[in-house]
Amino acid sequence: MATEQTGTVRTPGRPRSEKAEKAIIDAAIDMIAEGTGVAELSIEAIAGRAGVGKTTIYRRWSNKEELVVDALASLKAPIPELPGWSVRDDVIRYLSVMQQESRHPRTRCIMNIALSESERFPHLAERFREIVIRPRREVLRAVLQRGVASGELRSDVDVEVTMAALSGAMMFFTKWRDNDDELPADLAERITDLILSGLHA
Amino acid sequence: MATEQTGTVRTPGRPRSEKAEKAIIDAAIDMIAEGTGVAELSIEAIAGRAGVGKTTIYRRWSNKEELVVDALASLKAPIPELPGWSVRDDVIRYLSVMQQESRHPRTRCIMNIALSESERFPHLAERFREIVIRPRREVLRAVLQRGVASGELRSDVDVEVTMAALSGAMMFFTKWRDNDDELPADLAERITDLILSGLHA
Repeated sequence: MATEQTGTVRTPGRPRSEKAEKAIIDAAIDMIAEGTGVAELSIEAIAGRAGVGKTTIYRRWSNKEELVVDALASLKAPIPELPGWSVRDDVIRYLSVMQQESRHPRTRCIMNIALSESERFPHLAERFREIVIRPRREVLRAVLQRGVASGELRSDVDVEVTMAALSGAMMFFTKWRDNDDELPADLAERITDLILSGLHA
Repeated sequence: MATEQTGTVRTPGRPRSEKAEKAIIDAAIDMIAEGTGVAELSIEAIAGRAGVGKTTIYRRWSNKEELVVDALASLKAPIPELPGWSVRDDVIRYLSVMQQESRHPRTRCIMNIALSESERFPHLAERFREIVIRPRREVLRAVLQRGVASGELRSDVDVEVTMAALSGAMMFFTKWRDNDDELPADLAERITDLILSGLHA
């Protein structure tokens, strides 16, 4: 086992590149999570927070937007594992994960920048859709399509609108509330049962 | 009829106060609509855009946040008029207005700041809820409650979750799309019929 070297002063411009890269990305995410908008975010501030020199950042990323895209990409989209017993169970599980996530500042922050910065930073918005939104929607779409195929749901179910109603209802409560009340613990069940009630075969 | 006075040079610090107030509020809204975040917005830039001095602004508003709150309040919430023939008709009308509004940059901008700035500017977010969100939700809630009272909807309908599913589904398409396709013209009907299908008495 190698002994740890102490007392070595590393100059800011020459950290080991992988470690520096992680520090840079973490700094960017932390600042965004704290509420710094993409427009306000500066390479200088990120460098200061990460303890690296600006040139270290510019060696890897040509501009701020590219760095933010990589920072978003580093936040793995937590796609829920669905047991596949029934459409109802899988949808409840999917919506419960959405509800839990809404409490985490990092998840909230990436949702917020994706929404609020999409017009100013279209490349960022497109990457966010690609990395976070589409893979998750694919999971829910597959559950509903399986339900149609198995006969659990009616054959003429409008899968896209059903997805929108399920996810949209949860987002309405987690993101668009008009008060600060605690969300009901059985919210995922209530949404699922209300929407699926007209869709059973 | 009074003749218009020409050639009068008005100093920036002394415009007629009502006219100046409108110019200041319009400048703030325009800048927000163009994508300037609340944090980046400065009294100096608003003053420059409105063609007034900073002191004119400070005579009326103690800080930037108060000014933004008044700017939001000046945007009348366009609450749809509902004919009241049936729950289905009223809900379709309500959702169609949401869909139309989503095309207007000013509506989009106020939605975006309400979402993205709510943690940094809680007073702003609360005023936005009060002015824009709650009155509109009240209209939809009343439609559903009337449907329950008249027997058009089942007596055990979960009104709050139904509202969330209806509005959330439309927001899912207008705000959370994962592509840039044109929205279907019959989207409001499709959402309404899917969600109400399980709720009829």
